[in-house]
Amino acid sequence: MSEPDEQLFGLAPQPGQNVTLRDVAQAAGVTLGTASKAINGRGKLSPETRERVRAEALRLGFRFFSLQEDVPATQGVMVGVLTTDSYGRFSLPLLMGIEDAFGSRPVSAMLCNSRDQSREQQHLQLLLARKVDGIVVSARREDARPPIDIGRSNIPIIYAFTHVTDSNALCVLPDDAQGARLATEHLVSLGRRQFAHITGPSYFEAVRLREGAMRQVLTEHGIALPDYRVLSGPWQESWGYTATNFLFDQDASIDALFCGSDQLARGAIEALHARNIRVPADVSVVGFDNWEPMACATRPPLTTVDMNLSQVGRYVGESLLALFAGEQRSGVVRLPCSLVIRDSSDPLQQG
Amino acid sequence: MSEPDEQLFGLAPQPGQNVTLRDVAQAAGVTLGTASKAINGRGKLSPETRERVRAEALRLGFRFFSLQEDVPATQGVMVGVLTTDSYGRFSLPLLMGIEDAFGSRPVSAMLCNSRDQSREQQHLQLLLARKVDGIVVSARREDARPPIDIGRSNIPIIYAFTHVTDSNALCVLPDDAQGARLATEHLVSLGRRQFAHITGPSYFEAVRLREGAMRQVLTEHGIALPDYRVLSGPWQESWGYTATNFLFDQDASIDALFCGSDQLARGAIEALHARNIRVPADVSVVGFDNWEPMACATRPPLTTVDMNLSQVGRYVGESLLALFAGEQRSGVVRLPCSLVIRDSSDPLQQG
Repeated sequence: MSEPDEQLFGLAPQPGQNVTLRDVAQAAGVTLGTASKAINGRGKLSPETRERVRAEALRLGFRFFSLQEDVPATQGVMVGVLTTDSYGRFSLPLLMGIEDAFGSRPVSAMLCNSRDQSREQQHLQLLLARKVDGIVVSARREDARPPIDIGRSNIPIIYAFTHVTDSNALCVLPDDAQGARLATEHLVSLGRRQFAHITGPSYFEAVRLREGAMRQVLTEHGIALPDYRVLSGPWQESWGYTATNFLFDQDASIDALFCGSDQLARGAIEALHARNIRVPADVSVVGFDNWEPMACATRPPLTTVDMNLSQVGRYVGESLLALFAGEQRSGVVRLPCSLVIRDSSDPLQQG
Repeated sequence: MSEPDEQLFGLAPQPGQNVTLRDVAQAAGVTLGTASKAINGRGKLSPETRERVRAEALRLGFRFFSLQEDVPATQGVMVGVLTTDSYGRFSLPLLMGIEDAFGSRPVSAMLCNSRDQSREQQHLQLLLARKVDGIVVSARREDARPPIDIGRSNIPIIYAFTHVTDSNALCVLPDDAQGARLATEHLVSLGRRQFAHITGPSYFEAVRLREGAMRQVLTEHGIALPDYRVLSGPWQESWGYTATNFLFDQDASIDALFCGSDQLARGAIEALHARNIRVPADVSVVGFDNWEPMACATRPPLTTVDMNLSQVGRYVGESLLALFAGEQRSGVVRLPCSLVIRDSSDPLQQG
C-alpha cells in the first residue's frame, strides 16, 4: 500500500482491467454489499473482513484512486455541504476549514441551503448528477436527524454539528460539555460560588450537554445550583435580558452567570447594567460562541467559549481525505472548545 | 418564438441536426464571436444584429434549450455563487432568493467562498468542469471588481451586490441612495432638523451613496449638515459608540442620527444611554441593514433600512432565467430598499 497522500478515493479498477466489485466479493467470499463497505470504508464491518476484502481487491488489480494522478489539476475535488443554518454563522467557517484540510490540492466546498426536506433532496440529486466527490451534512443541532439517502452512490458522507440516527455514520461536533466545563471552572477559579445559568431551548442537545457539564463541575466543587437559577428559553438576546431580571428579582447574591450563547450573555449584561450591578466586579459573565460582532461589542467585552468551528471544518476535511483513501471512520467525534478570556469575568473582590 | 417559460438556456442545436454556431455565423454574415454574443445574450450588440443572428439560428434549426424538455427533472439547474462575504449575512438570502425565482423547477444555488483570487479561480474551474449552468458573483461592496474570466464558456454571469469593470455585465444591487433618502425623509417628517451621520469607510461605494443621498434630502428641505457632523470609520459597533461621544461632546443640539449600519446605530444608542440622552425622545436614530439579531435587540428596537436582500436574489434568479432564454441584459440594476419603523425614531416633542 502506498502513502495516504497518494491513495485517495476508493474503488477504481486499474485502467485496462476488467475486475469488478463482484469479482472482489467473490474472491473474498463476501456479499457485494460487504465488499462495497470494505472498500469504501462505510458501514460496520470487522477489521478482519475489511482487510481481507481489501487485500483481495489489491491482489486482483484494484487500485485505490489517487488524487494526484486521477483528478486533473484543473478540476479539483467537489465537496457539497448541505446546511439548515440559515444565518451562515456556522457554515462559512466549516467551508473554510474543509478547504484548508486539502492544503494545495484544488477543492471547492459548496454550500447548499436545505430549507426543507424536498429541497435537500433536490440538492442531493443535483450534487450526485454533477459527480460530487463527498457530502457534508450540517444542521442546527436540535435532535439527531435521519441520514441522507444517496441511493447506490458510494461517496463519503460526514455529518457536522449534527447527530444522525445511523451508528455507521461519522458525526463531528464541538465538545459542548468540555466547553461548558472550561467556562464553569474558570468562574470557580475566580472565587465565584453563586452560579446561575441562562440558556436556549432544552430540545437542543447542546443546551442539555452544557447545563449537565456545568452542574457536574459545580458538584465536584461542592457548589449548589438551585433549580430556580437555571432558565431555558429562546436563543434571543431579549431572553437573556428578561431571564436576568427574573433571577435578580429573586436573589441578589448571584455572582457568576454562565450563558448558553453570546447573545444571551449580552442581554444579561444589559439587564445587569440597568440594575446598576457591575460586570465583572459584582457578577462575572461568560458566554458561549465567541461570535465576535456580539462578544466584542458587549460592554465589557465578553469572556466566552469558542467552538473552534474552522477546526471542526478542518477535521471534516481531513476525514473526507481519509474516507477517500478507503479508511473506515464512524461514530461521534467531539473536538475541544477553548475559552477566550475578555473583561466580563474577574476575580471576586474580597470585602 | 415560444413562451419565455419554455425557452430557457440558449445555444442548443436540435437533436440529430449538425448545425453549428459557425453555420449560424456564416448565414448571418457575422463573426463567430458575434454569433455567440447574439445567442447567449452577453456582450454589446445592436438589437438588429442580435435579432438577425437569432432569426438565422432558428431558420437553420437551432432550437433554444427548454428547461422543461431538456433538463431531466432529477438533475436540476446548478447556479454557482462566488462570494467574498465571509459572514454569510448577505449570501444566504441571495441563495434563497435565486432558488425562489425558479419556482418549482429544480435548482441548486451553491455558495463558494472566494477568499482570494487563486481560490476564486479554482472554484470557477471546478464549476465549469461540473457543467454549472450559471454563475453569480457577489462581494462586499468596496470598489468595482474585475470581471471573472470563464474562458470560452458561454454560461450567463450576473454580479450581485458588486460592480464590475465591464459595461456589458449585469450588476444587481440594492438602491443605497433611495434607502438613505427613505431614512432621511422619515427623520425630517418627524420634525427633526439637527442631523448627524455616522458611517463606514468611504471607500465603500454604499457609504458614499448613502451620505450623498442624505445630504441631498437635507438640502431639499433647507437643512444644514455641518462637516463635523459626518463621521466615517470602521464597520464596528465600537465606532458607533466613539463617534457618538465625539459628536455630543461638541454639540448637544443634535436630534437625528442616521447611521450607515445597524451595528453603528447600536453603538450610538449605547453611547446616548450612557450620556442619559433619551432615544427616541431626545435623539431619533435610524440604522441600515435590518440585521435582526442586532436591530431587534437594540433598546429601543431600531428603525432601519432593509435592503431586501432576498428580493435582490430573486431578481438575480429571474435574470438568470431570462439570460438562459437568450434575452440580453446588462448594466446596473438597483432595487428599492424599504424602511422598517421600530421604536428608535419618534416625532420631536415640542416644548
